[in-house]
Amino acid sequence: MKNPIDPNYKIRVQESFKLQTVMATLSAELILVEAGKVQIQLPFNDTLTQQNGFLHAGIVTTIVDSACGYAAYTLMPADSQVLTVEFKTNFLAPASGDYFIATGQVIRSGRTLTVCQGDVVAYTGDTEKQIALMQATLIALKSD
Amino acid sequence: MKNPIDPNYKIRVQESFKLQTVMATLSAELILVEAGKVQIQLPFNDTLTQQNGFLHAGIVTTIVDSACGYAAYTLMPADSQVLTVEFKTNFLAPASGDYFIATGQVIRSGRTLTVCQGDVVAYTGDTEKQIALMQATLIALKSD
Amino acid sequence: MKNPIDPNYKIRVQESFKLQTVMATLSAELILVEAGKVQIQLPFNDTLTQQNGFLHAGIVTTIVDSACGYAAYTLMPADSQVLTVEFKTNFLAPASGDYFIATGQVIRSGRTLTVCQGDVVAYTGDTEKQIALMQATLIALKSD
Amino acid sequence: MKNPIDPNYKIRVQESFKLQTVMATLSAELILVEAGKVQIQLPFNDTLTQQNGFLHAGIVTTIVDSACGYAAYTLMPADSQVLTVEFKTNFLAPASGDYFIATGQVIRSGRTLTVCQGDVVAYTGDTEKQIALMQATLIALKSD
Repeated sequence: MKNPIDPNYKIRVQESFKLQTVMATLSAELILVEAGKVQIQLPFNDTLTQQNGFLHAGIVTTIVDSACGYAAYTLMPADSQVLTVEFKTNFLAPASGDYFIATGQVIRSGRTLTVCQGDVVAYTGDTEKQIALMQATLIALKSD
Repeated sequence: MKNPIDPNYKIRVQESFKLQTVMATLSAELILVEAGKVQIQLPFNDTLTQQNGFLHAGIVTTIVDSACGYAAYTLMPADSQVLTVEFKTNFLAPASGDYFIATGQVIRSGRTLTVCQGDVVAYTGDTEKQIALMQATLIALKSD
Repeated sequence: MKNPIDPNYKIRVQESFKLQTVMATLSAELILVEAGKVQIQLPFNDTLTQQNGFLHAGIVTTIVDSACGYAAYTLMPADSQVLTVEFKTNFLAPASGDYFIATGQVIRSGRTLTVCQGDVVAYTGDTEKQIALMQATLIALKSD
Repeated sequence: MKNPIDPNYKIRVQESFKLQTVMATLSAELILVEAGKVQIQLPFNDTLTQQNGFLHAGIVTTIVDSACGYAAYTLMPADSQVLTVEFKTNFLAPASGDYFIATGQVIRSGRTLTVCQGDVVAYTGDTEKQIALMQATLIALKSD
């Protein structure tokens, strides 16, 4: 576990997550907030698919982007905001499953920029498979 | 305009687009299908935002990923399927606006892999601004 | 052409380029410096290849990274330094040819971060082909 | 350790590495070849720098690209070739040090495409720091 500057990072992340209306719209839930690591869970939903009935790559990306963004945010100062500069995602297998867990982890936390790795694992009954891998750059901005 | 192998590429793209349930869920519409170029339009929707009220980066990515995927698909054989191998997106400005248009264009079309560039422009009244830039790799698979 | 803050941007780029010892080592030359656009030329050299005798992807990346970095640098203030935050490169065709020209262009120039697109074209006799496509993020730092 | 199809993968990688003339030019050495994992070591060299005297990002990329490519190649069939489709690299700290070790590891190995993660660590006296992080896509081609 990394060393957070702001001891109240958990509450700060939870409150920001509630403001992301897209998370409620997708029924995504914040299931883990540690210093430098965040997990988001998403149930499969057949209104969010691509043409073959798999979860759309953009929806997979939505939850792992938020997981990476909030992982970065846990290590930022209390008066900061986090924005995604860019990310790159590889899709490793079709996004089928009962539910999905996206994990974001901080690799390097700088004053301005943070680099995170993220992945998404699909769960079907007792089996799991990794379906996506992300490398992301986040920026800390001063809150107004 | 590039040279399509399949003269019926437009219908093929339109039918596949209808199968992407996430597009109807987001109210996204296919507004242009040319050989090597596809555009998708999305109205702003405050149930799809991140914590500052801007469209979530993952939703922006969803429409430009589909635009790139279908741009690639216009140049693939009739009996093929298209899947996203990976993409990288830079976010250039906050995703605020009345509506958004994502454009995907083929840069290089190979037998197996296609490389596309995509971008997303936000429209607010009479003004427009580019908010995202994507570089994506797509793969053609034989249909079953 | 974009609007440079520093009217002496050309000299600033040329002097920085001379400090990149790797450019002389590779025999790469700076052939164009405009506000927001830079080109670097590299002759083919069979001491810089991968296993099939093509220019190594990392060497192709070296010249287009510098082209993007210096394109960004043309629009930065006189007292700034430029560093590469990250880049993503697609390789479109084998890097064979007599010589190569890398072009870097600014897509969005911000106070802290700049986003560039780059490409590399290979020239063989009278023919040319695009061999690489880059999307890069650069950061402006204050000089000491 | 992953399961290689070709028991002679080590020799195959070593022989291909010798054909990469750029590796000898840079004085890079292959120091580890396991199924799914390859390491390459590079001494610092002041003829390979950018403008601040750090190793150029493209040279850092050259060794980690080869490490990822050969990691992928260890798991490919005996009669295949490996090419880089694309990669994305984040630069985490300035590339200063006595020497550098690039590690490439296979995350997912498919029949056509392989996804790898790579990183580069700089060593200075007794200290080490991670300076780069790569996510790469490789393709297996049939040898002629």
